[in-house]
Amino acid sequence: MNGENMAAEMAEQPAVIELLLQRRAAVAASISALLPEHLCGTVLLARGSSDTAALYGRYLFEMASGRPVALASPSLHTLYRIPADHRGYLAVGISQSGRTPEVVSVLERMRATGARTVAIVNAMPSPLGDVADVIIDLSAGGELAIPATKTFTATLVALALVAAAMGPLPWSDRDLTALPEHISRVLDDSYRADLIARRLEGADRVLTVARGPLLAAASETALKIRETSAIFAEALSAADLRHGPIAAVTPDVPVLAFSTPGPAAADVADLCAVLRDRGVTVSTISPDAGSDLPLPRTVPEALQPIVAAVRGQQIALSTALARHLDPDAPIGLTKVTFTR
Amino acid sequence: MNGENMAAEMAEQPAVIELLLQRRAAVAASISALLPEHLCGTVLLARGSSDTAALYGRYLFEMASGRPVALASPSLHTLYRIPADHRGYLAVGISQSGRTPEVVSVLERMRATGARTVAIVNAMPSPLGDVADVIIDLSAGGELAIPATKTFTATLVALALVAAAMGPLPWSDRDLTALPEHISRVLDDSYRADLIARRLEGADRVLTVARGPLLAAASETALKIRETSAIFAEALSAADLRHGPIAAVTPDVPVLAFSTPGPAAADVADLCAVLRDRGVTVSTISPDAGSDLPLPRTVPEALQPIVAAVRGQQIALSTALARHLDPDAPIGLTKVTFTR
Repeated sequence: MNGENMAAEMAEQPAVIELLLQRRAAVAASISALLPEHLCGTVLLARGSSDTAALYGRYLFEMASGRPVALASPSLHTLYRIPADHRGYLAVGISQSGRTPEVVSVLERMRATGARTVAIVNAMPSPLGDVADVIIDLSAGGELAIPATKTFTATLVALALVAAAMGPLPWSDRDLTALPEHISRVLDDSYRADLIARRLEGADRVLTVARGPLLAAASETALKIRETSAIFAEALSAADLRHGPIAAVTPDVPVLAFSTPGPAAADVADLCAVLRDRGVTVSTISPDAGSDLPLPRTVPEALQPIVAAVRGQQIALSTALARHLDPDAPIGLTKVTFTR
Repeated sequence: MNGENMAAEMAEQPAVIELLLQRRAAVAASISALLPEHLCGTVLLARGSSDTAALYGRYLFEMASGRPVALASPSLHTLYRIPADHRGYLAVGISQSGRTPEVVSVLERMRATGARTVAIVNAMPSPLGDVADVIIDLSAGGELAIPATKTFTATLVALALVAAAMGPLPWSDRDLTALPEHISRVLDDSYRADLIARRLEGADRVLTVARGPLLAAASETALKIRETSAIFAEALSAADLRHGPIAAVTPDVPVLAFSTPGPAAADVADLCAVLRDRGVTVSTISPDAGSDLPLPRTVPEALQPIVAAVRGQQIALSTALARHLDPDAPIGLTKVTFTR
């Protein structure tokens, strides 16, 4: 069957995350020991699917540390060789293979110019681990499908653990340990994603929207839909959408809106109302009554992207299968991409 | 005639930029005096069209200072009210009207938490200016068309002047002062944009690509095409495109590729070849012989985005007119957007 690797790897997520969470005290200790005395800021370094994971880290790191978070532009280091100064920075490189060449060379350069470095990988040993002061091995096992699933959500969990070592975050230890169970329930309730897939039938563009931490899940969902289904899917923050791109959202562009109770919920709800007034089909992924694809009610907003990403995987898988495409091996994609 | 405001405002760009450049010594002096003794990093704060300008600042600030550059997430401050610490930071807020509410409130918060603040505005006085230590007034005059043109390129010039006060950049004073003349020549040669507009005929998706500093021009071009022509246009770095989204680029999606001689040129050229092999129509905006829309040969790479943005304006204007749309007043857009 097409997509059987992707489906099997999605099903492993509760177990992978449970194992990773068991190491949370060790991660906290190693990051605490690594942090510079006066933290200037943090830098996240990633490519492809890992880039949407970095968006999640971007929110959490700033929430926890209060310090600005930069997303690295690898070309400044690999192509332009700018004179860099990373003293006072914690730099976190993400690469599931541990061998995305530019992630390795840029993390190495950040370390050489003063950064304390962390590698989030799913491979031991690895070139990325070799240039890191602290290695977080996801231990997610091999991933055969091209679209990253279990390594993606495990990366989000790893980022949450790193962030928690920097300062207080709005969740309890019990909220963390409850994640595998929530994800299991979401995985057991997969048929609803077929409804969304039917709404995407015939669409050649899809828009995903969110605001706040859930933007990482919206971005990952857009990327997964592109990868599996060759649809031109794109994620936008609800705020950015209103500042221009909304003019290009016509009724033939289905919208997937991610939200959860919290400060951003009203903003996303307002936007959905505006879009529906324009005749746009909006599907909701949220814990609200009447949501098209429910999220658990008791997951705090800052952890909800981990669960919502699984909903996005279900949408991407169902959409590909409805189009008779093989999500395990999308056209034109390889597992490790070589860019400078 | 439709689009006459946009065309008239585009034509004012050489004069606006010349006036702004005359103040370059004063800008350099005020920024130098403002910089923290130990610069931790810089933060750029913007929305909408100003957000693509911030991308340009993002490259230049890091090139000049060697320190990471963060793009602010306003919601962390406006909605989530995180405990922030901006000591050691230079924060630059961009808002042509000077009254985008969240840009004003977030810059104010950054200043209150330790940042030195700069406002780039086209309005005196303004709420954004009131929360800034240094105000750079673009003095571009009123802008009647909804798509920002002269205020956009003037913002890029302002960012270049701020960056130059942080450290060495790869251009000479003569390169700066030659910009108005280069832009005049590009404006005189507008008919070639009609060729690109014809290639976009019937397309409902467009992709713009670049790598390095020109990514700001590619992003702005995508935004302008969306605004004026209700096409789902999107910008991607050549490197990011290869890490996944390339699977969704099919022959019915025209691609606009921006490049200029420099370290990133080979990467963009390789990507264009790959896309053409897949049957994609690629139009080039570059100084190379045979380019579809030429850029001047003698503009250094780090200043080329300013000229290339004018090419993007021409494409957006021609495309809208070819579709019998009024680029001055796109559907669903207003000049100042209120988001929290």
